[in-house]
Amino acid sequence: MSTTKMPATNSNSDLSAEKNLKPSASHSLTLRVKITNTPGMLGKLTSLIGEVGGDIGAIDIHGFENDAIIRDITVKVRDSEHGEKLVIALKKLEGVEVVNVSDRTFLMHLGGKIRVTNKVPLSTRDDLSMAYTPGVARVCMAIHNEPENAYKLTIKRNTVAVVSDGTAVLGLGNIGPEAAMPVMEGKAMLFKEFGKIDAFPICLATQDTEEIIKTCKHIAPGFGGINLEDISAPRCFEIEERLQAMLDIPVLHDDQHGTAVVSTAALMTATREAGMDMKKAVIGQIGLGAAGQAIGQMMMRLTGNPVHGADLSPEALSRFEKMGGVKSNLKDIMANCDIVVATTGAPNLIKPEMVRKGQIILALSNPNAEIDPEVAMERGAAFAADGKSVNNVLGFPGIFRGAVDSNSPRITQEMLLAAAETIASMTPSGELVPNPLDKKVHHAVARAVAEMAIKQGIARADYVPYVEE
Amino acid sequence: MSTTKMPATNSNSDLSAEKNLKPSASHSLTLRVKITNTPGMLGKLTSLIGEVGGDIGAIDIHGFENDAIIRDITVKVRDSEHGEKLVIALKKLEGVEVVNVSDRTFLMHLGGKIRVTNKVPLSTRDDLSMAYTPGVARVCMAIHNEPENAYKLTIKRNTVAVVSDGTAVLGLGNIGPEAAMPVMEGKAMLFKEFGKIDAFPICLATQDTEEIIKTCKHIAPGFGGINLEDISAPRCFEIEERLQAMLDIPVLHDDQHGTAVVSTAALMTATREAGMDMKKAVIGQIGLGAAGQAIGQMMMRLTGNPVHGADLSPEALSRFEKMGGVKSNLKDIMANCDIVVATTGAPNLIKPEMVRKGQIILALSNPNAEIDPEVAMERGAAFAADGKSVNNVLGFPGIFRGAVDSNSPRITQEMLLAAAETIASMTPSGELVPNPLDKKVHHAVARAVAEMAIKQGIARADYVPYVEE
Repeated sequence: MSTTKMPATNSNSDLSAEKNLKPSASHSLTLRVKITNTPGMLGKLTSLIGEVGGDIGAIDIHGFENDAIIRDITVKVRDSEHGEKLVIALKKLEGVEVVNVSDRTFLMHLGGKIRVTNKVPLSTRDDLSMAYTPGVARVCMAIHNEPENAYKLTIKRNTVAVVSDGTAVLGLGNIGPEAAMPVMEGKAMLFKEFGKIDAFPICLATQDTEEIIKTCKHIAPGFGGINLEDISAPRCFEIEERLQAMLDIPVLHDDQHGTAVVSTAALMTATREAGMDMKKAVIGQIGLGAAGQAIGQMMMRLTGNPVHGADLSPEALSRFEKMGGVKSNLKDIMANCDIVVATTGAPNLIKPEMVRKGQIILALSNPNAEIDPEVAMERGAAFAADGKSVNNVLGFPGIFRGAVDSNSPRITQEMLLAAAETIASMTPSGELVPNPLDKKVHHAVARAVAEMAIKQGIARADYVPYVEE
Repeated sequence: MSTTKMPATNSNSDLSAEKNLKPSASHSLTLRVKITNTPGMLGKLTSLIGEVGGDIGAIDIHGFENDAIIRDITVKVRDSEHGEKLVIALKKLEGVEVVNVSDRTFLMHLGGKIRVTNKVPLSTRDDLSMAYTPGVARVCMAIHNEPENAYKLTIKRNTVAVVSDGTAVLGLGNIGPEAAMPVMEGKAMLFKEFGKIDAFPICLATQDTEEIIKTCKHIAPGFGGINLEDISAPRCFEIEERLQAMLDIPVLHDDQHGTAVVSTAALMTATREAGMDMKKAVIGQIGLGAAGQAIGQMMMRLTGNPVHGADLSPEALSRFEKMGGVKSNLKDIMANCDIVVATTGAPNLIKPEMVRKGQIILALSNPNAEIDPEVAMERGAAFAADGKSVNNVLGFPGIFRGAVDSNSPRITQEMLLAAAETIASMTPSGELVPNPLDKKVHHAVARAVAEMAIKQGIARADYVPYVEE
């Protein structure tokens, strides 16, 4: 048996929290197997895969060899260990030879997930002399004489930097800039697919606040916006705030505000479904990191009421109090609040017995929530959901699309609230949020954000829906 | 008459040096004209364009209107003033109405010249869970555990940053980072077209040596190489040297070494054609800026002999002397050298009477050379050429392609010389250098550079010609 040359994933490189999950596409194998061509063999094989717990997808014929048929079988498994167990079981099956095992997620990542392409041809000397010297000189001087021409004559208008220092990547923590690249490339893909924005990943070899700020400031001229990503708290607050103050392009830390937008939209839907009046509800936020602080802030702005906050860090609590929040703790919030949002990263932090009847609970930590929504519902919650349902992808592509279409120098709280309201208004009945693959939602978010920018008088352009050249 | 909304180019935004040039594609207009449909009208129109000095390209029919035909006529002109003169003349012609004038170079630049695209689809939830969370987490950890996996699982392997501070852009000088963008985008296009490299422009809002170095160092993790571009001397020397010392990816200031490679290739061809032995020739370099110093250095390495250098700056002369060069001046170099290369930026610096019989002269300043090659030939030069014939595009795409294919941590002088020799060896008889549009040349340069890296023992990978996924 040969295997494709995939980087070895040690068992400890698996998120241990992924254990006990159901088989998923995020861990899907393509098994190339040579099967003796006797009746019933494929049945035996697929039964065995099912017994081991693998979830079979496509079954393709790759070719024939003597008396055997070679098939590619795609199987979703739970994790690396589960995949290995499956292969070992298959190898014991008589009449079946495992030729090759490839991990589809790794295959998809070979060579990276994005590329840079040319919009105009470079086939002739005339092309060269227009796109490069000497023709380009006139274009340079048109920008030099009128700097705002950069928005017309360069990629700036439609280009966003996705900047991370790799300190708070997914649930993985401080894994550094190189290891953060696959996430930032994925983010760039989402920007393109759902926002038609050209985003480029910039992963920084520094975790120093001052250096991060200076680096972003220095590289800003070619970009129309900066999406800060996966930068740990509390540095993320200062970095975003100071950068936005010094630059005239939108700077947004998505872990804060993107999450807040989608969570707020989810709360709008949940309260509507539960018949709860958000403005009369007591709201608690457990965990005041990047996401938690921003969610609390947005709910205070939306309702006009203070939000109760809990965090183990006294600094985080003080920061939240300065924003108008009320210092509290896990127990009191669970006991007194009608709406509870948790963003702590601590699985099973909320015990079933803490749940109050009629409560709305969003337990957002990934991959494992503070409380299993089903358990919360059993204990009488009016509504409960986890982070898998509250997908950031619903927010940032449309938010940045709206910001660049209106050429806004920043993204205001009002623009973010407009995005949340749009997402909530487009949620199908019975769902918490819309399907993130539905492009109509992203278009609507973009329009709402741009229109709010125009209304607030900060737009430097009328809203022009983007048409790809 | 309406004109497309193009940014106004003031007459002083034209390179004054462009004046008196022949019509060129770099300044080409598309004229939309409504012509009364009577016999002979098109003839009158085209004759008039010819009289004014316009060079007619394509003539297309755009449509019909009552008794008139609407045509799009592409015309190359010399400069903006010449274009205006042409339009004024046409407007006086009876039976012709100028509907619209558009500048093809500006049209080509609208919205910028490159885009970021996705390599893999994002159409289903399964796609999302492989390219982004939760699947991407395993890929991140594979890199975190073995950092060299970044070359397999991210865009790093094939991605080069094109970094400029906008201080020495083309012949335009210190025009700043925004105005430098069209050049850097053009450079990225050339990287893609001729080297299949994903290059991304990074234009810096700082001109401070320390800040430029730190910024490049900070953004390096996601890139497989850094192409420094249009950074003025002498800062460019220190920036390149110190960055290369601290990073394990190639850092190359193309204005120095790319120019040196192509100029050296040109001198190899010229000496061969003139029957001159380069190793026995006395060589002079007039102008010791970024390009001049690198050309002198490469010629010294190639021949083993000192090169005579001239520059107005005592610092530049001292630097050159420290490299093994000989301090000289314009007059002495012209009087004593068999081979003269000029990179001063000063048009007509070399007077016709200074030319020595049998001399080889490369007067490389753009757009206007230190001496017109035809004049030099008339005065008895064995060979003369200007910068239009010595195109950098022949160098950097293949040089970086070879460096990344061999995964070299730097680009050595030997790799650069291998590139120069390959370019010279592929020059068709009677030409100074090959056609830069000939992709075979770029492939050969890449192979030669990679093979030299392997020979020198600095390659971290065997040479694998790039195949686009």
